[in-house]
Amino acid sequence: MGFHIASAAPRRLSEDETMQGVVNAWYPLAWTSELGQAPVRRTVLGRPIVAWRGADGAVAALDDLCPHRLAPLSRGRLRDGAIECAYHGLRFAADGRCVRVPGEERIAPALKVARYATREKLGLAWIWMGDPEQARPQDMLDIPEADRPGWAYEQGDALGYGCHYLNLCDNLCDPSHVSFLHPTTLGDPLGEGVPIDTRAQGRSIVVSRWIRNVPPVASFAPFIAGPVDRWQYYTYHAPSITVVDFGTAPAGRVGPEGDRNLGLRVLIGHCITPVDDERCIDHWFSLRNFGTDDPAVGRALHDGFRVAYQEDKDMLEAIQQEERRHPGVRPVRIGIDAAPVRMRRLVGQMQDAAGPAASRG
Amino acid sequence: MGFHIASAAPRRLSEDETMQGVVNAWYPLAWTSELGQAPVRRTVLGRPIVAWRGADGAVAALDDLCPHRLAPLSRGRLRDGAIECAYHGLRFAADGRCVRVPGEERIAPALKVARYATREKLGLAWIWMGDPEQARPQDMLDIPEADRPGWAYEQGDALGYGCHYLNLCDNLCDPSHVSFLHPTTLGDPLGEGVPIDTRAQGRSIVVSRWIRNVPPVASFAPFIAGPVDRWQYYTYHAPSITVVDFGTAPAGRVGPEGDRNLGLRVLIGHCITPVDDERCIDHWFSLRNFGTDDPAVGRALHDGFRVAYQEDKDMLEAIQQEERRHPGVRPVRIGIDAAPVRMRRLVGQMQDAAGPAASRG
Amino acid sequence: MGFHIASAAPRRLSEDETMQGVVNAWYPLAWTSELGQAPVRRTVLGRPIVAWRGADGAVAALDDLCPHRLAPLSRGRLRDGAIECAYHGLRFAADGRCVRVPGEERIAPALKVARYATREKLGLAWIWMGDPEQARPQDMLDIPEADRPGWAYEQGDALGYGCHYLNLCDNLCDPSHVSFLHPTTLGDPLGEGVPIDTRAQGRSIVVSRWIRNVPPVASFAPFIAGPVDRWQYYTYHAPSITVVDFGTAPAGRVGPEGDRNLGLRVLIGHCITPVDDERCIDHWFSLRNFGTDDPAVGRALHDGFRVAYQEDKDMLEAIQQEERRHPGVRPVRIGIDAAPVRMRRLVGQMQDAAGPAASRG
Repeated sequence: MGFHIASAAPRRLSEDETMQGVVNAWYPLAWTSELGQAPVRRTVLGRPIVAWRGADGAVAALDDLCPHRLAPLSRGRLRDGAIECAYHGLRFAADGRCVRVPGEERIAPALKVARYATREKLGLAWIWMGDPEQARPQDMLDIPEADRPGWAYEQGDALGYGCHYLNLCDNLCDPSHVSFLHPTTLGDPLGEGVPIDTRAQGRSIVVSRWIRNVPPVASFAPFIAGPVDRWQYYTYHAPSITVVDFGTAPAGRVGPEGDRNLGLRVLIGHCITPVDDERCIDHWFSLRNFGTDDPAVGRALHDGFRVAYQEDKDMLEAIQQEERRHPGVRPVRIGIDAAPVRMRRLVGQMQDAAGPAASRG
Repeated sequence: MGFHIASAAPRRLSEDETMQGVVNAWYPLAWTSELGQAPVRRTVLGRPIVAWRGADGAVAALDDLCPHRLAPLSRGRLRDGAIECAYHGLRFAADGRCVRVPGEERIAPALKVARYATREKLGLAWIWMGDPEQARPQDMLDIPEADRPGWAYEQGDALGYGCHYLNLCDNLCDPSHVSFLHPTTLGDPLGEGVPIDTRAQGRSIVVSRWIRNVPPVASFAPFIAGPVDRWQYYTYHAPSITVVDFGTAPAGRVGPEGDRNLGLRVLIGHCITPVDDERCIDHWFSLRNFGTDDPAVGRALHDGFRVAYQEDKDMLEAIQQEERRHPGVRPVRIGIDAAPVRMRRLVGQMQDAAGPAASRG
Repeated sequence: MGFHIASAAPRRLSEDETMQGVVNAWYPLAWTSELGQAPVRRTVLGRPIVAWRGADGAVAALDDLCPHRLAPLSRGRLRDGAIECAYHGLRFAADGRCVRVPGEERIAPALKVARYATREKLGLAWIWMGDPEQARPQDMLDIPEADRPGWAYEQGDALGYGCHYLNLCDNLCDPSHVSFLHPTTLGDPLGEGVPIDTRAQGRSIVVSRWIRNVPPVASFAPFIAGPVDRWQYYTYHAPSITVVDFGTAPAGRVGPEGDRNLGLRVLIGHCITPVDDERCIDHWFSLRNFGTDDPAVGRALHDGFRVAYQEDKDMLEAIQQEERRHPGVRPVRIGIDAAPVRMRRLVGQMQDAAGPAASRG
């Protein structure tokens, strides 16, 4: 390998180095509580990112790669709000400019690192992987209940999946699988074959179903006696977020278009970060409208969710291995796949719209 | 990845997805005792297979891949003799037809899974990897002693080797290596350089040698005092089975064409399943004509065999790594290689005879 | 795979099988104390080598590959000064000739193994990876102090690095990084930005700097009080050796061209063996001119070195992963890179000079 003078533009990773994905979108980088005065490394769309919180509290995010010798900056220290490379002491400010080369007066313009826009919301620090000047706050996930009285927020986990993020999104556009895959928590055989309703609007898809006049599923059984009506509303926001509205009310109390707040209602935010072609992370959290003062209620719900998500993880990782083994095999489509098919079309359109230039940020 | 309607023919895995090998042959799938009312996953010639025992006791074997979303069917449950996918509840009968899609009346013809013929014999369930209509029972391994009085059957192990199955077959066409590789069990320096006899007939090769008027090897020493005559007859059946006839008699009692049953005789069946290009499994068992009522005799013999087979495994796995490292290097042939050379020619002919069409089953 | 009669020339590994590197050079194979009457396996420039010490005490080194079936010879035994393959008993003498094939009178000329020249010096057995007839003893590392009174030799470790050897050589042409990467042992912030001097002569490069009138660094603090002058002289010998002269004297005692033996002086030999494209081994040792009768002094120095080398290893392995992830990214050069740039140019010239023919040995 030789040494070359790089051009003056801050280098962005080329397509070869990253995964295909939607760059003009917000992805979870970390829980807000994870970011402070020490550098943190995360990988998003195949790009390693170093993040930290500046003196002003704002989250800085740069490519985690010192342009001098390719050391990960995250191994370094923070000095005066800049990150200092642990190998030779080069320092980079939150905007990506090199502000110090030990022993040198003049700093080569090539010594720049790409920076990313960040925002904090819903307990998470989010990163916009495209051009930071084009970052659109209005594209961030909004859950109005998070700011309403009568609702309790509870942080879940950053659950890593050994699968492509779109396979997890398939799962999160699909209320029907809970009857088979999660029989001890979220579903039971009474839900087998119950029809689903799929509606798309812009970059969102809502998939829902009602199961009426049945006992509650295991996750709700401690809180309500049957007979009940159960609902699932899965609202997918392209490219990688789903909010699940999962609830139960005494049979007959809530009509099809009625106020679901009359029942026990849990909103679960699944915010997926694509790591690379075979890994993703689901930062999930919940909001509930019952037992809001009782932490044991949140714990009990999350314990059940963790059982179910482990079942999803085992299944999706098994499928990922089969996809790797059989690269030429395409799934055969059945009725419940309307939403996943639409989901993948939406994501494809977003990728195409960004184009190769935009995909470099 | 998009979703496509697959053709109506049950999909078979393409050549890209599998290893090169002889499809028109019987391979061990599992010990008969391993198969029951729960699905079992095995990989043969690079193809994952799900197997179970139906209500009638017959062994069902299908590609372990739900055509809907590529989930391994073996993660599912048996329902009414069919296997139900754990993800969305699709059910497949023992013949590979989809018999239920939850919530749907009509089942797309594409929802089929390839099925394989199976048979049980010698304590093993066997699978025919080619077209099930062409499966030939007469091609199964036959060891007449298994049904004769005066012989005891003892199950060995399913020993996994990290090597190509033909490298293990080399070893199983080669009585001479025991003098060097197994000096504490099956061989000793007295066997170094003793000539071997190689005879081929159809798809079989018999390689043998006698070592006369010597002490017994360690594996026989507990059962007979010297001087003895020792023999090894290795009968290879293409593509992947060897029966070793390994015995010892008082010196002079058995002539060259004499009745080896006059001595202590052990027949060891080595039935190899090619898993992929770098892994195979040896289901091995023994038959003996002495100490047939004494389980301690069988245990003592098998303890010695396990020491020797671990030596084979270590050596063959080391060779596999060298072959991977040096893809262009070809072995140099010496006198004892007559049988391995013939063995590989036989296997090549069987692969060519099947042709690319047959290799798809 | 078929069997072929190889040509009569001892086969050398082709370029595909090995890493790019300088074959006409001496590399450490093992500590002299590691070689005896049992075979030892090492990998150099991607080639597995089997080494042992013959009856005459000389170190034999051959390709670790039996040409018969590709078994590693190092799994075998020594017999009459030859190595015997554990699989079928073929024996190879120290010059690579096959001297026995069990059961055969005539030995095929193809049954040869490539041999390598070896030498012992400075506590190490060295191997010349090119044509053994061209091995040049005068190219071996020479450290005159090793034979002088008043100096103590102390063996260090064979430290494996998960990185390309030239990345470790970068580090060993670079006195400036110690201020940042080794602040608790070899450097401190007083060294940040201190200018370095780079001089090249033939196949060597000397990179040095002085830091004057400061406290000693942690590694010297137990042995001398400040104020002191510190020096670092890194003498790189292409392709893969550096001797670091690392010392401290009372401030003002030693002038720029003065006798560094007036201070406390440690010479550290770093002798790098390229294993493959992503691994290398540093056999390191030290010579010191103080506390030569006190083993505790050597232990204390080495304890500090081990802390520092672990920091180097962590950093270089992190960089290796980033280089693998970003194959198209080139480092941006700064002032301190003069020596690494020259180092890589030297190595490139040595590779080109050898040419493809010579690279096969």
